[in-house]
Order: sequence, then structure tokens, then C-alpha cells
Amino acid sequence: VVVNVASTEPHPAWQECYDDLGALEAALAERPGVLPPSSLHAYAAFKAGHGFVDFTPSFGTRVPALAQLAEQAGVPFAGGDGKTGETLVKTALAPMFAHRALHVRSWYGANILGGGDGATLADYGPRASKIQSKQSSLGKLLGYTPDGTVHIDYVAELGDWKTAWNHISFEGFLGTQMKMQFTWQGCDSTLAAPLVLDLIRLTAAAQQRGDAGPRPELAFFFKDPIGNPADSRLVMQFEALRDWALAGRVAA
Amino acid sequence: VVVNVASTEPHPAWQECYDDLGALEAALAERPGVLPPSSLHAYAAFKAGHGFVDFTPSFGTRVPALAQLAEQAGVPFAGGDGKTGETLVKTALAPMFAHRALHVRSWYGANILGGGDGATLADYGPRASKIQSKQSSLGKLLGYTPDGTVHIDYVAELGDWKTAWNHISFEGFLGTQMKMQFTWQGCDSTLAAPLVLDLIRLTAAAQQRGDAGPRPELAFFFKDPIGNPADSRLVMQFEALRDWALAGRVAA
Amino acid sequence: VVVNVASTEPHPAWQECYDDLGALEAALAERPGVLPPSSLHAYAAFKAGHGFVDFTPSFGTRVPALAQLAEQAGVPFAGGDGKTGETLVKTALAPMFAHRALHVRSWYGANILGGGDGATLADYGPRASKIQSKQSSLGKLLGYTPDGTVHIDYVAELGDWKTAWNHISFEGFLGTQMKMQFTWQGCDSTLAAPLVLDLIRLTAAAQQRGDAGPRPELAFFFKDPIGNPADSRLVMQFEALRDWALAGRVAA
Amino acid sequence: VVVNVASTEPHPAWQECYDDLGALEAALAERPGVLPPSSLHAYAAFKAGHGFVDFTPSFGTRVPALAQLAEQAGVPFAGGDGKTGETLVKTALAPMFAHRALHVRSWYGANILGGGDGATLADYGPRASKIQSKQSSLGKLLGYTPDGTVHIDYVAELGDWKTAWNHISFEGFLGTQMKMQFTWQGCDSTLAAPLVLDLIRLTAAAQQRGDAGPRPELAFFFKDPIGNPADSRLVMQFEALRDWALAGRVAA
Repeated sequence: VVVNVASTEPHPAWQECYDDLGALEAALAERPGVLPPSSLHAYAAFKAGHGFVDFTPSFGTRVPALAQLAEQAGVPFAGGDGKTGETLVKTALAPMFAHRALHVRSWYGANILGGGDGATLADYGPRASKIQSKQSSLGKLLGYTPDGTVHIDYVAELGDWKTAWNHISFEGFLGTQMKMQFTWQGCDSTLAAPLVLDLIRLTAAAQQRGDAGPRPELAFFFKDPIGNPADSRLVMQFEALRDWALAGRVAA
Repeated sequence: VVVNVASTEPHPAWQECYDDLGALEAALAERPGVLPPSSLHAYAAFKAGHGFVDFTPSFGTRVPALAQLAEQAGVPFAGGDGKTGETLVKTALAPMFAHRALHVRSWYGANILGGGDGATLADYGPRASKIQSKQSSLGKLLGYTPDGTVHIDYVAELGDWKTAWNHISFEGFLGTQMKMQFTWQGCDSTLAAPLVLDLIRLTAAAQQRGDAGPRPELAFFFKDPIGNPADSRLVMQFEALRDWALAGRVAA
Repeated sequence: VVVNVASTEPHPAWQECYDDLGALEAALAERPGVLPPSSLHAYAAFKAGHGFVDFTPSFGTRVPALAQLAEQAGVPFAGGDGKTGETLVKTALAPMFAHRALHVRSWYGANILGGGDGATLADYGPRASKIQSKQSSLGKLLGYTPDGTVHIDYVAELGDWKTAWNHISFEGFLGTQMKMQFTWQGCDSTLAAPLVLDLIRLTAAAQQRGDAGPRPELAFFFKDPIGNPADSRLVMQFEALRDWALAGRVAA
Repeated sequence: VVVNVASTEPHPAWQECYDDLGALEAALAERPGVLPPSSLHAYAAFKAGHGFVDFTPSFGTRVPALAQLAEQAGVPFAGGDGKTGETLVKTALAPMFAHRALHVRSWYGANILGGGDGATLADYGPRASKIQSKQSSLGKLLGYTPDGTVHIDYVAELGDWKTAWNHISFEGFLGTQMKMQFTWQGCDSTLAAPLVLDLIRLTAAAQQRGDAGPRPELAFFFKDPIGNPADSRLVMQFEALRDWALAGRVAA
């Protein structure tokens, strides 16, 4: 299984050849740069008969032609952007507001970290991919997009210790405005490493039992899951993952 | 439907007659004080054919003899202790640690509030009932009881604005120790009122369709739900509530 | 006394005529736009014999020629940028780290607010003036500039409630790394209004007793005080203010 | 110089002999337990001609008879209760509210820690001494005692990492209610050790230049300083310490 844990890339402009495998391969023959590195690695993995996991918010397998290739080659793939900190908490917490009919007026997040990942995200292009990936889940979880944004800032001395503050302003009965805040102090590599190991094992198992193409059952691990799964709630993602894993075990 | 929203009572010592309706009624005939006020109100409600909701951590219907009476009378009851703030967040957040195999080393909570409720909880007896109710869910959600305790303090000037700080120390891959903190600034009455309204409607609906006795399907609303439901995760409690409510609607 | 409480302007490029009153007046005769609005108002105030207070981080009286004019006209002026929230806390807190020889590794601030002020600061130019003003005090207070930055974001629904999170990473004995965080929930107008009133009274009193030109004794009120006062510590600014105010009272 | 860094003791009931050295020595001859261990150590230090530093909130030198002995013996002493975390922040922060005429409605603190110190403070008696010491500075700094209390709880797994949350509710112009919160994550031994070293050097220097008896100039280091110094503001305590240290250096 090939896993992309490289730094975040900016997303390329959409190209017509992304929609069809034949057209994509013809374009690649002339201009290998038609695909960004993350997608090129996915292409190579599929061609060689290997599953692919995108642990970043990069373009990766977000190309219909690559999904066609994976189905043909009988290999599974999953992604994108490992859910290790702030977004993990969001997918656990946002359902609480939704289920209790507490209207979220704004949800703001500030993230600081150092290290190579922090340095990359200090550039605008990659950060835009990341922020889009971080915010996408909130709309799905709440049914509307609250006010607010997400900031990622590079603070060199923090190294791998990703620190996040989230401020949530919400409204209850009779319009009463209330607040919740959380801070998260997590070691990003330590949070990511076991997810990568699990993803490798689960993707290999999927291939063994013939589950090819995008694997929405692995949404539990991702900020912006491929395959458009219906439910973004963390607990339901866990249940879906367990049901799928157990079903496979029974079949075996 | 009779709803108990009185201030928290200390729990009485257990008495043998609590286990049997006949014995309880015999004891009541001689000593009405054999039951604390919350349980006496539940008894009266059941005798009069009304459902009962305990929105407090008081003793209420935690008497097997009263459950027998409710079943006989064909009336439903639910409780206990409305889940409006810190514990609500816990039941949303703790599954995240459990599902990600992040071991919670300690979970500490400090709660401050004023008002009548705050003043009552400043006394030791009622506070003990409350704290026990607050901590009970964590063990069920995690599968073990982490270090830490819960404090409730009376700060008069805050009035109804219950403010809580929770500090969670957890351990990831290779024993790395990480932290999460949250603060909650909620208006307690505003959070409680719509739950009380929903509970009245749902209990009345349960009675109409013949669902007598303890209603574990209403666990979504409570810190320490009656009827010992298997799953303490907020999202699963919501799913159970919705399934039950919709099943009833279809039947009607 | 004229007070500038307009929204923050971007700073203009420096012009030679700013250094000399004669040159400035010659330039103004031809191009009134040679001064930004805040400075033009200061010029008009001085010409009319009135003191001027700049409650914003705008260019205002940061023009040597205007200081010459104020001295000539015998009018006092003060500024810039009222210190109402995050920076107020910084000037109270940073001396603690300095005096205890706790080395501040990074100091990061995220600010969110709505209202007209928030909307203006969402534009890059004004925000740059503001952020520069906010960070300037930290270097003076610590003797070095720690890692980190300050963010100001517009979150419409918060209105006038400026909310800030600051994360401070510091190092003690034997290199041990520790953290402090604070959050501030302040109503910006409410915090600013009494300062404006005090500044008007104090500036009027200064004029009465003949204290013309820049008034560094009013540094207590500002993020980026005019007149380059030696001590940026809040408590020492208060002592300087009180000494000056009492000296004036005695003289009167 | 003898330094008391033992765990906190409960305070004894006041005894008449504490007011006079002769009476105290007579009582000691009969009942050595008339003084708690911390005070007995101070007595022994003074008798042997050594200065004494009480880094704890214990009774120590809070005995007038011991001050008489120190003056006679020409030895200095200082204390009590090293100011390393929450109270350090309070003495830096509270002047901000006082100087800006922001009325503090309540100030609440929750402290959690493990280790031997945490275990001792879990017992009621020692904790009472500690809490009294922690709260005493707030009244002096503000001129009134706001609502609220301080909690210290033992959370074994945190070890030496003292973690504190403070919630401050304050009132500004026109009665507007605002909030500030801070959290502190400090390694208690690391924060204490350099203070102990400095105190030893400064107490030895005091003795060398003949400054006997209680040393209020060392108030900078303590939660509840001996000698009743007039100013409890951290910055002014630092200025007083520096002035005193420099005066000594000049004299030498």
C-alpha cells in the first residue's frame, strides 16, 4: 500500500482530461506535469497494483480517471487528510449542537505549529487546501455553515506540538447566546502514526477481499473523506468502520 | 406528566421496603418519610395515572417498588438529572478518545454557578448526589475510570450562568502525553427548559402508545439514565431516541 | 480637545515634507491629500488651538511637523491606539516573565470581533497598522521579540464583543518548557469609552497648565504611545500618570 | 541560610507565649511541641546565627517572639509561601483591573497537581493554610475581596505539573459584565528551584550587610510576605527588590 504523507500541495486548476482515463494517459504521455506529484504517485501505485492512501489534503486521487483506473486494477484507495486534532474534535463535538438544536452562530479556529508541516502551511497555496479541508466537515455536520474561519500559523519553536483554540458561539432557547471554547495540545506525528499503520492494514485487507475503488468506510480517519459518505459524525464513522471490518472478517 | 425540577436532595440510606411495592405501601402508611420528597411525588404521580420525569439527580424513581407501580399503572417514567452542560459535552467527547484508542489519564472538572441551584449544591449532601451522577457516565464511555474528580462551587454573582472548565490529560502512541481543555459558558435554565418541554411531550406520547415503566430511550436527556441503557454515547442516544420516536409515529 | 475614534487607516508612505512644518504647509496648500485624514484632523485641531488625542493606530500625529505645530500653538497631544484588551493584558503580564527570568519562546494572539471596527480590520492595510501597534510593546517589555504573531479576524455575529486567545510558551530553569494561555471576552466600546472620557479631561488639564506637545505621561492608555516613554510596564505607566496628574493638581 | 521547603503544615491555635521570647523559651523547655516543626526549625536557625527562609505557607516565623530572636541574633528571615504559579499571575494581573477601574465581581481558581505536594494538599488542614495564603493577596491588590474561592485538588498522574484555571468576572462602564480566563501549565519544582537559590543568596547578602529581622524587600518571591509590605503589585515588588539589592551593592 502506498501512503502519501508528504507536505500539502496547492490544488491544480481542473483539466478536462481528469474525467477520463484514456484522455489522462494520453495527456500524461506528453506532459507528466498534467498531474501534481500526489496524483502521479497514486497513478503509479494503481498501475503497479497497489492500494493508495492519501493522508494529506493534496489533490491525490480526487481525479475521476484515477478512480476508473483503481476499479480496473482491483485496488482500493482512501483519503484525504488525516484527521488528528482540531477536525477530529469538531466531528465529535458538532453533532452535540445539531442534536440539541443549539444553533451555532460562529465557529472559529486558530492553529499554531512548527516543524516542516507548519512551514509548508505558512505558504498560502497549501494552506488554502488545508483550510478548505478543515471547514468542509462543519457544514455537513450542522446542515449549515456558521460564521467564522480557520487560521493556521507557523510558530517555529512549537515544533510538532500542534496547538489549537476553537471558539464556538451558539444560541439556545429564546435566543440566549452562549459560548464554548476548547484548546488542544497534541503531538501531531504521534497522533498521525497509528492512523497510518491502521490505514495500511485496513487497505491491504480491503484489497485481499476484493473491495476495489474508493473506500468510504475509512472516513473515520479523514478530514475530507473520499467517496462522499453520508454521515460525518465521528461516532457513526466508527460504527461504519467496525461494521465493515467485522463483515470482512466474517466473509474470510 | 409530573416533572421534578426541584433542587437536588441528598440520597437516603437504602431500606428493605424499597424492593417491593406491598412492603413500601405498608411502610408509607406508617411513616410517609420513608421516601424522600422526590420519590413521594413519583409515587403520587403513578397512583394518579401520570407519567413522571426526574430532571434532578435526586432519589426519585430509583426505587424498584415504584417501577413495579408504574408498570401496573401503565405509566412511563424517565430520568435522572438533565444533561445540560459539562456532562453533555463529556458524552459527546469521551467516545472520541475511546474510538481513537487515546488513553485518558485524568479528566478533571471545575463547575461554578450561582442561583438557587448553586446555593443548594454548596451543601455537601446534594453535591455528593450530583457529582456521583456527573462522574458515572465517564466510566461507561471509556471502559475504565480515569484519575480526576468534579468540583461544583457556588459563585453567587454568576447567577444562572454555569461555567465549567475541564482538563483532560491523555496518552497516545508510544506513551506521548497530550492535553485537551474546554470551557463552557451556558445559561442553565435556557439549556434545561426545552429539554423539559420535550420530555413532557415524549413521555405523554409514550403513555398514549402504551410504553409503560422506565424509558431508556430518553437517555439522551440525562446524566444518569434510568433503565441502564447499553450505550452512553450521545450520538447513539440520539439515534435510539429518533428510532423510538419514529417507530411510535409509524404505529400511530 | 479633538479625539480620533475613526476606523483604522493604512499608513501612508513617508514624505520629506513630514519633517518640517513650513514644508508641510507648503505641500498642503497644493495637495491636501499629502496628509491622511487622521493627520489632517490633527493639523486642523492644532491650528484652532485644540489638543488632539489619537485613539487609533492611524498615522495621526506621527508627523514631526505636527509636533512642531503643537509646541508652537501650546497644545498637548496624545496617542496612539487605545489599549483596551489583549495589549492591555500583555503590558500587565509580560513584566512577570521578564522579572522572573522566564524566557518567552513564543507569544501568539488570535483576536475575533465583528462590528464596524472588525470589518475595517478585515482589510489588509488597516490590519497591518493595527498588528504592528499590537506587537510593538512586547519587544519593549521583554527586551527581545519572541516567536509568534497576532491575528485579527472579522466574525460578524460577535459584534462589539472582542474575544482574544493568547498562547504563551516559556522556558524556565534547566530549559523546562511551560505554557500559559488566556482568553479575553470584552465589550470593546465599553472598555474604550471611559478611556476616551479620561483622555479628554487629562488633555484639557494639560493644556490649562501649559503642558504642550506630545504627552508621554498618558502612555497608560495606549498600545503604541507617542513620545517614546522609557517604561512600557502597565503598573509603571499608571504610576507615571498618577505622579503627573498629582503634580499638576499641586501646581494648580 | 536555612530554607523550609517541607510540605505545608496546618496552622496551630494561637498561644500566649508566641508574643514574647522569654515566655516562648520557657514554654519550649517544658513542651517542645508548643511550636510546630516549621517554627522550631526557624528557632534553631536563629539560635545558631543563621538566616531563615520559609518557602511554604506553614506557621514558620509568624511568631512575634521569633522575630525578637532574629533581631537579637542579627539574622534576617523571609517568607512565606513561594509564589510560583497562580498567585504569581494574580499579582501581575490584578493591578490591571484596579488601575483601569474595572470592578472584579468574582475571581475563581481551580488548581490540580500530583506529587508529594499535591498529596499533602489533598488533606484539609494543610490545604486551608495554602488557600488562605493564596487568597490574601487579592484583597490587598484590589482594595476589596471579590466573590469566589480557590480549589486545590490532587490528580496523581499530573505529578509536578501544576495546572490552574482562573475565571475572572469583571464589570466595566455602565455595568457591562465581561470575562477573562487563564490557564497555567507549570512545572512546580522548576519554577521554585531558582527562587530558592536566589533567596539563599539574597538572605546571605542581607546578613552580611547587617539587615536583620523580617525582610519585606523579598516580598517579590512570596504569596503572603512577612513584614507586611505596603505594595502587593508584582512590578512594585520587583522595583523594591532591585532598589534594595542595588543599595546594598553600593554600600559594599
